[in-house]
Amino acid sequence: MSVGPVTGAAACFALMVLAGSTGAIAQPAACATAPETPQHHNIAVSAETVHWGYFSKNLKPVLTVHSGDLVTIETLTHHANDDAERMINGDPGAESVFGWTKDKKNVDRRGAGPMDASVLGRGAGEGFGVHILTGPIYVCGAEPGDILEVRILDVKPRPSGNPKYKGKSFGSNAAAWWGYHYKDLIEDPKPREVITIYEIETDGDTDWAQAIYNFRWVPQTDPSGVVHKTIDYPGVPVDHSTIKENHGIMSGIRIPLRMHFGTLGVAPPEQDIVDSIPPSNFGGNIDDWRIGKGATMYYPIGVEGALLSAGDAHAAQGDSELAGTAIEMSLTGVMQLVLRKKKDHAGTILEGLDYPLLETNTEWVVHGFSFANYLAELGEKAQQEIYSKSSVDLAMRDAFRKMRRFLMQTKGLSEDEAISLMSVAVDFGVTQVVDGNWGVHATIKKAIFPSP
Amino acid sequence: MSVGPVTGAAACFALMVLAGSTGAIAQPAACATAPETPQHHNIAVSAETVHWGYFSKNLKPVLTVHSGDLVTIETLTHHANDDAERMINGDPGAESVFGWTKDKKNVDRRGAGPMDASVLGRGAGEGFGVHILTGPIYVCGAEPGDILEVRILDVKPRPSGNPKYKGKSFGSNAAAWWGYHYKDLIEDPKPREVITIYEIETDGDTDWAQAIYNFRWVPQTDPSGVVHKTIDYPGVPVDHSTIKENHGIMSGIRIPLRMHFGTLGVAPPEQDIVDSIPPSNFGGNIDDWRIGKGATMYYPIGVEGALLSAGDAHAAQGDSELAGTAIEMSLTGVMQLVLRKKKDHAGTILEGLDYPLLETNTEWVVHGFSFANYLAELGEKAQQEIYSKSSVDLAMRDAFRKMRRFLMQTKGLSEDEAISLMSVAVDFGVTQVVDGNWGVHATIKKAIFPSP
Repeated sequence: MSVGPVTGAAACFALMVLAGSTGAIAQPAACATAPETPQHHNIAVSAETVHWGYFSKNLKPVLTVHSGDLVTIETLTHHANDDAERMINGDPGAESVFGWTKDKKNVDRRGAGPMDASVLGRGAGEGFGVHILTGPIYVCGAEPGDILEVRILDVKPRPSGNPKYKGKSFGSNAAAWWGYHYKDLIEDPKPREVITIYEIETDGDTDWAQAIYNFRWVPQTDPSGVVHKTIDYPGVPVDHSTIKENHGIMSGIRIPLRMHFGTLGVAPPEQDIVDSIPPSNFGGNIDDWRIGKGATMYYPIGVEGALLSAGDAHAAQGDSELAGTAIEMSLTGVMQLVLRKKKDHAGTILEGLDYPLLETNTEWVVHGFSFANYLAELGEKAQQEIYSKSSVDLAMRDAFRKMRRFLMQTKGLSEDEAISLMSVAVDFGVTQVVDGNWGVHATIKKAIFPSP
Repeated sequence: MSVGPVTGAAACFALMVLAGSTGAIAQPAACATAPETPQHHNIAVSAETVHWGYFSKNLKPVLTVHSGDLVTIETLTHHANDDAERMINGDPGAESVFGWTKDKKNVDRRGAGPMDASVLGRGAGEGFGVHILTGPIYVCGAEPGDILEVRILDVKPRPSGNPKYKGKSFGSNAAAWWGYHYKDLIEDPKPREVITIYEIETDGDTDWAQAIYNFRWVPQTDPSGVVHKTIDYPGVPVDHSTIKENHGIMSGIRIPLRMHFGTLGVAPPEQDIVDSIPPSNFGGNIDDWRIGKGATMYYPIGVEGALLSAGDAHAAQGDSELAGTAIEMSLTGVMQLVLRKKKDHAGTILEGLDYPLLETNTEWVVHGFSFANYLAELGEKAQQEIYSKSSVDLAMRDAFRKMRRFLMQTKGLSEDEAISLMSVAVDFGVTQVVDGNWGVHATIKKAIFPSP
């Protein structure tokens, strides 16, 4: 079911009009009557069902659900145009979203910047935010202070729509200018950006990704005539007559799949339009590869209806996402959305929860960031300043404090017990060092605790 | 076999005499003839076979081995005196090492500081370095530039020597002033140090640790009459009539065991006597819980004979060792020592290796530090300055560079291939944030690569 989708252009217009508003989307009519049993909805991805490069509390929902409903949600990688032949051509959803000629750009706004690209001239939205996000989904009855529980029941690769590649799936890894390595290269030429195209094998027994070829980015002219010397705007079609494909690379190397949603979260209340890149208390671009099939996420809701969006799917990623991206690929997820009202949080893991918490069958994972809520902490210029203020050290401190609170609140430990337990049984890892607001996650195994 | 052990006091004398020397220990006579088959040696732990709180290239070896020999090596935790009844009494080795009365201290020097404690008055060596290290072991033929491969074949808990605790083993976790949490406590009183005593269960099917009780540190007067307001000197006996044991803590919580050696490494060439706390290129106090049974470590050798020492054993530790220690316990290891001569390194994983590399059955782990070789990088005052200059960010950068080199050199990848692979398949974790020279490790699975 898809309620009142807005086109990209219309969405952008709405944003400009609503800037500075309270952000409360009117409750959709579908909320008036709750069905007796959970419904299973479907969101097909198209220019009508995505917003590109930003979260916004002012976006009109593409779907309205009641607590307990299931959603099959298609997502597209914003890197599909690195190899349109494999990842766009013949796929109506992808062709719709990426459609861009001199005269028409199906999704104009890409990023949280100005529509007239008056800052850097890259294009509408300036690419200040890059992820294609499907949604938002309005959850009936959701209010600030509640928690949205998102159970990821299934994650499947999106097959190529090109008959030439029938049954195959592909992804792209960009080692880009925002990567951790970029100013620290040892081989010439320096600096350089490199795209590696991977094929995803998922025939059951053999789940892995293998590199097909790579190429160095050379300036690309987009259909509007803007030249992109670097990867500075999402969805620019790569003209393969201008690049050199290097085949036979990474010979025999098979990357284990870790299919997950790099970006998944609810709309932040602090500002009207928010860059999709830095993760924060509302979730978003956490880039934790554990947010895949079987995982459950808990998000603090900041606005009425929650407004959940999903995208930036990955075939695989290491802790750190070092080069700036994972194996970016289009995935379809099946999620169940459960609303946890604030009045029921006391004495549960949700009491006082103010960050995105991850639960798997075996683990709890708390997500620390350089700034726990960067929009609130850094004020009006937060979206600019976050890019120069992050560090792993700050994220480590935040993860420590969150895990301590988790153990004290949800397991009833004293601070002394929690500190000792953290030292001997909690693992801290580097989630990512490339998303503006850097991340450290802390993991504890459930089996450590007695059965409830 | 134990060749020419020196007493603690004699060792210290030797150090003072040899300060500023070239550090070349004369080749032991046992090196003259290599046995036809590998020998299995044993080092029983006692005041004669340990050095406490420091590495030194000038220490006389307690054992001489040929490449390929095996060593059963007993180690003692420096925290045993937190509960002498469980961890020292009735254990001749522990009683020997910890023996300390008003008139006699079996191992006087504890740390790399001055013997007259003229800096802070804590005691001989000042506790500038805390680990009881068994060794060093001289490896015949080892020269600077070679690599020492240490295969950890087995690790076993050391049972209590007290008949009252027959068959049981114990460990201690100190949440101490050097912990990451110490200046960031939320419960009163602040600050405080807390010791938690754990029992280690290893009956095969059920391998875990459980807390027995904890207590807050209160000033302890050592047998020499020095009062220790904080945990500022290793091996101070805790008078249990002065503390309050809190039993019934961490109810039902079972910590999975990760038995390993927190400190294992060879003698650094840069200075004569080196604080055991900061890990570095020579290994030492890396505090990676993966350095246990089945693991193989590769250490760059800095001095003739390599001079391997082991200690600081742990029952379990999380990535970060947050509170300052793990579950510190006494363990006995069985290790095989294999000398890898420099001339044979070309084209192998050892070519150009200048840091401690870990191999398990399934993974490669490179160890990054805030300073890759802090003694060389920070110069004469390195041992003081390292404590104020470390960060997770610096360690992350070092781990990135080391993993890149590992992939390029040992797997023959171009820099572009290595960077892409790191982004999609290498996990970066926080090894520790409490050892002066902080650590980040990077892990890659062997199964990713084609079989050789």
